[in-house]
Amino acid sequence: MSVNWTMKQTKMLKNENYIRKAQALIPNLYYRKETPVSCLEYDGAEKNLTVPGQNKEKQEGYGKGDRIVFDFGENHAAYFQFTCRSVGSPQDAPAFLHIKFCELEKEIWEDCSDYNGWISKAWLQEEWLHIDETPSQINMARRYAFRYAVITVLDTSRKFHVIFEDVERTAVSAVRTEDAVPLPTDDPLLKQIDEVSVRTLANCMQTVFEDGPKRDRRLWLGDLRLQALTNYRTFQNRDLVKRCLYLFAGLQNQDGMIPACVFERPEPHMDDTFLLDYALFFIPLLVEYYEHTSDFDTVAELAPHALHQLELAMQYVNSEGIICAEGEYHCFIDWNEKLDKQCSMQAVLIYCLESARKLCLLIRDPKQEAVCTDRKEQLLAAARRTFWDSRQQVFVSGQARQVSPASQVWMILAGAVQGQEAAELLDRVSDCPILMVTPYMHHFYVQALLLSGERQKAIRHLKGYWGGMIQAGADTFWELYNPENPEESPYGSACINSYCHAWSCTPAWLLREMHGVSNSV
Amino acid sequence: MSVNWTMKQTKMLKNENYIRKAQALIPNLYYRKETPVSCLEYDGAEKNLTVPGQNKEKQEGYGKGDRIVFDFGENHAAYFQFTCRSVGSPQDAPAFLHIKFCELEKEIWEDCSDYNGWISKAWLQEEWLHIDETPSQINMARRYAFRYAVITVLDTSRKFHVIFEDVERTAVSAVRTEDAVPLPTDDPLLKQIDEVSVRTLANCMQTVFEDGPKRDRRLWLGDLRLQALTNYRTFQNRDLVKRCLYLFAGLQNQDGMIPACVFERPEPHMDDTFLLDYALFFIPLLVEYYEHTSDFDTVAELAPHALHQLELAMQYVNSEGIICAEGEYHCFIDWNEKLDKQCSMQAVLIYCLESARKLCLLIRDPKQEAVCTDRKEQLLAAARRTFWDSRQQVFVSGQARQVSPASQVWMILAGAVQGQEAAELLDRVSDCPILMVTPYMHHFYVQALLLSGERQKAIRHLKGYWGGMIQAGADTFWELYNPENPEESPYGSACINSYCHAWSCTPAWLLREMHGVSNSV
Repeated sequence: MSVNWTMKQTKMLKNENYIRKAQALIPNLYYRKETPVSCLEYDGAEKNLTVPGQNKEKQEGYGKGDRIVFDFGENHAAYFQFTCRSVGSPQDAPAFLHIKFCELEKEIWEDCSDYNGWISKAWLQEEWLHIDETPSQINMARRYAFRYAVITVLDTSRKFHVIFEDVERTAVSAVRTEDAVPLPTDDPLLKQIDEVSVRTLANCMQTVFEDGPKRDRRLWLGDLRLQALTNYRTFQNRDLVKRCLYLFAGLQNQDGMIPACVFERPEPHMDDTFLLDYALFFIPLLVEYYEHTSDFDTVAELAPHALHQLELAMQYVNSEGIICAEGEYHCFIDWNEKLDKQCSMQAVLIYCLESARKLCLLIRDPKQEAVCTDRKEQLLAAARRTFWDSRQQVFVSGQARQVSPASQVWMILAGAVQGQEAAELLDRVSDCPILMVTPYMHHFYVQALLLSGERQKAIRHLKGYWGGMIQAGADTFWELYNPENPEESPYGSACINSYCHAWSCTPAWLLREMHGVSNSV
Repeated sequence: MSVNWTMKQTKMLKNENYIRKAQALIPNLYYRKETPVSCLEYDGAEKNLTVPGQNKEKQEGYGKGDRIVFDFGENHAAYFQFTCRSVGSPQDAPAFLHIKFCELEKEIWEDCSDYNGWISKAWLQEEWLHIDETPSQINMARRYAFRYAVITVLDTSRKFHVIFEDVERTAVSAVRTEDAVPLPTDDPLLKQIDEVSVRTLANCMQTVFEDGPKRDRRLWLGDLRLQALTNYRTFQNRDLVKRCLYLFAGLQNQDGMIPACVFERPEPHMDDTFLLDYALFFIPLLVEYYEHTSDFDTVAELAPHALHQLELAMQYVNSEGIICAEGEYHCFIDWNEKLDKQCSMQAVLIYCLESARKLCLLIRDPKQEAVCTDRKEQLLAAARRTFWDSRQQVFVSGQARQVSPASQVWMILAGAVQGQEAAELLDRVSDCPILMVTPYMHHFYVQALLLSGERQKAIRHLKGYWGGMIQAGADTFWELYNPENPEESPYGSACINSYCHAWSCTPAWLLREMHGVSNSV
């Protein structure tokens, strides 16, 4: 995410005890060898792949400028390996290869050499490789997210060419898709959406819940919550959630604020990015963890840190009960730079006060519970007073009184409006020009529809938005999807987009919830 | 060397006994850690390097587009290693580096990205590196030839930069320059030429005598002979020569011809390049090996293979005693494509008949010795008849009766002309437009001068030609040097030229010979 959210002069307070607990829960990963479903040649300017002739593959081999595409059938986080042999005269120079890993077919044709967006080009999944000696078994050390491995021969020599044998990848995950609790549906599109959701989540479940196996490959708190909720209904991996809870609780800043993301390597450490909505989501994350695991000890130990996030948020609430001073804190809500986030942030705070109330009940702290109840009522009342526009019959946000779907969605999730009234509210912003741009925000929209009793509309939106990605070639769900502009990127170029991103995995949870699949781990 | 010299349908006859002997002689290499003598920054468009500020190196660090040059003071075959640390916010993306290794300063500024010459671009000494985690100890696996390591930061992220610590190289060679027999001279330029020659040879002495540590890094027969002769007077490493003798003798084609070059890895195997002059040089190579080692057993064992090269050459000699049918065989002589090689090749054959005669004496085969003597006299007489142009008073070559220094040099080395007559012959071609283009050919020219009693001219040529390279910045001698055009390359671009090349190391031998330094190993 953006450098703008960096909090300068941040000190890390590391709770060694929590980090030890987190490290004891590093999962054993599943490794699975997979061979390509096809090997294709690129024959020049046209976007055309052809099956290589037997001669080409075994005798002529590949020389300068040749490009070969190995298709593994599905996008997966994986390591890549192959044997490089030479054909022709004895190898009298290194073989020089460029290897690019693509999640989508369209990436095979993209030239990313002049990518200059604001996200590091180091994330482009490509390598340059010199092979001094053949035959050589090449085990590429880095992990990539890919369906296609594209080898371009940059040079051999006039005397020898190369061939590639034993091409395979080692797919890696903390879970196996075949172990996911099945979704009982006969609807072929929902079945497909579910499969892709489950695959997306599996790819992001590594030694932590990563946001994306291509990029950024680390643990973000807001994303973790959606992954955890989807995981409870699918893979039911309780320990990986617990590990992530302890990582976040173990890495706070000097004010006790939980960071928006943490890094695992070389030692667990926090990023200096802090997002108030993400920090607050530690509260529902913990409550939901209890609801699905009954692990009271963990919840009791971490509850004070969760409740402390509330205190940090409350300092930005003014005497009228409205959260102010954006800029002193940052929040995410959605990737739309035009979005005014004040109303949504107020709603998130109310939403998390309700979670906090439940947490206090759990840990048997009635005094604190009463505080949460009071605060929630105050902030709800203040929100209705300040943000409700009775003429337009919508919630507005900020000084410019901006109307957005995000504000309505979050106010519904916060309980400010319910039932038919909520359904009508969502209808009222269906043509709003302030678009929802991430699957993350679209998820909360679907949740709001369900909460408003709009099950058919929720399914229609799942089929339209997530089904749209499938129609566009997704076998894992994307970081970003704008049905109007599939090339959209907040980073300056689609080259750097991630096409398997955890925050878009939630249909597997929402669909199981709609189909009454049990939640217990 | 060129694909044109490839002999198709070549079978390798491997003498396992010889290869075993060769492999038993793989030397233990010397590894020496070296730190840069300076670290410099490149500040943009100008060819200007500056010392980085303390802040830059330790706090600001290096980001996108920054370029840092580590100067190790001398060109050497070496491995490169460093520690990459990040500064600023926690590392939130891989660091992406381009690392280029330069033998000469001018290479720092060369853009080789569009190199498209006929020699493989895989030889360009550059790598692209992603560093996922910092601090990271980077031990680059491949060996390079370099004085300068140039790191360009292709990207970090907006949140962190990188710094480089513990930058060092591990220089590698079968010998140590400080162990070379010293040259007793007070002439500062000759002293410098000698030092550079010795360093050049040391760099090329690895597990075989390589032609160049940048390129092609393998054992060529003609080059080996000059290296062996220089080695006897400097490092006196008898075993490495012996290893190479057995590698060549152990890898012949179906006709018993010794290949022009062999490869060590993964198993010793021969190239399908065959050069008649190189094959014949196995004879003097063996004789000289005996003269400097008195290792009779090796010479006796390998003599039949040496003498067999003569038989192979004699099949191209016509009834008039002239070597013909170039095209059926190939020979090297020099890198000048305009050079007619017939006369030189005739002279090489005569020269090697003399070596063969000595070899027969050594192994006490008077019958075969007599055959060599007869043949030598016949071929000498034929050469004088056919190639001597009495009007121009020079040797000419081919149907076009081309005049070249190479023809005169080789005829003098073959003993066709001697003393004052030879000296005048060399004078006569001093302005010849058919230039000598390689240090290899220039070496034989100096040898011819010495043989003609022109010691002063020989020294003048050493100082002019090899001293010219030093003036142009050489601290090891180059593969190619044209004083008129330092950018000359037979490969389409100087990018691919090798600036440490064994065949230019011979001043260390010639100077010791002139100074009467003992030869015995």
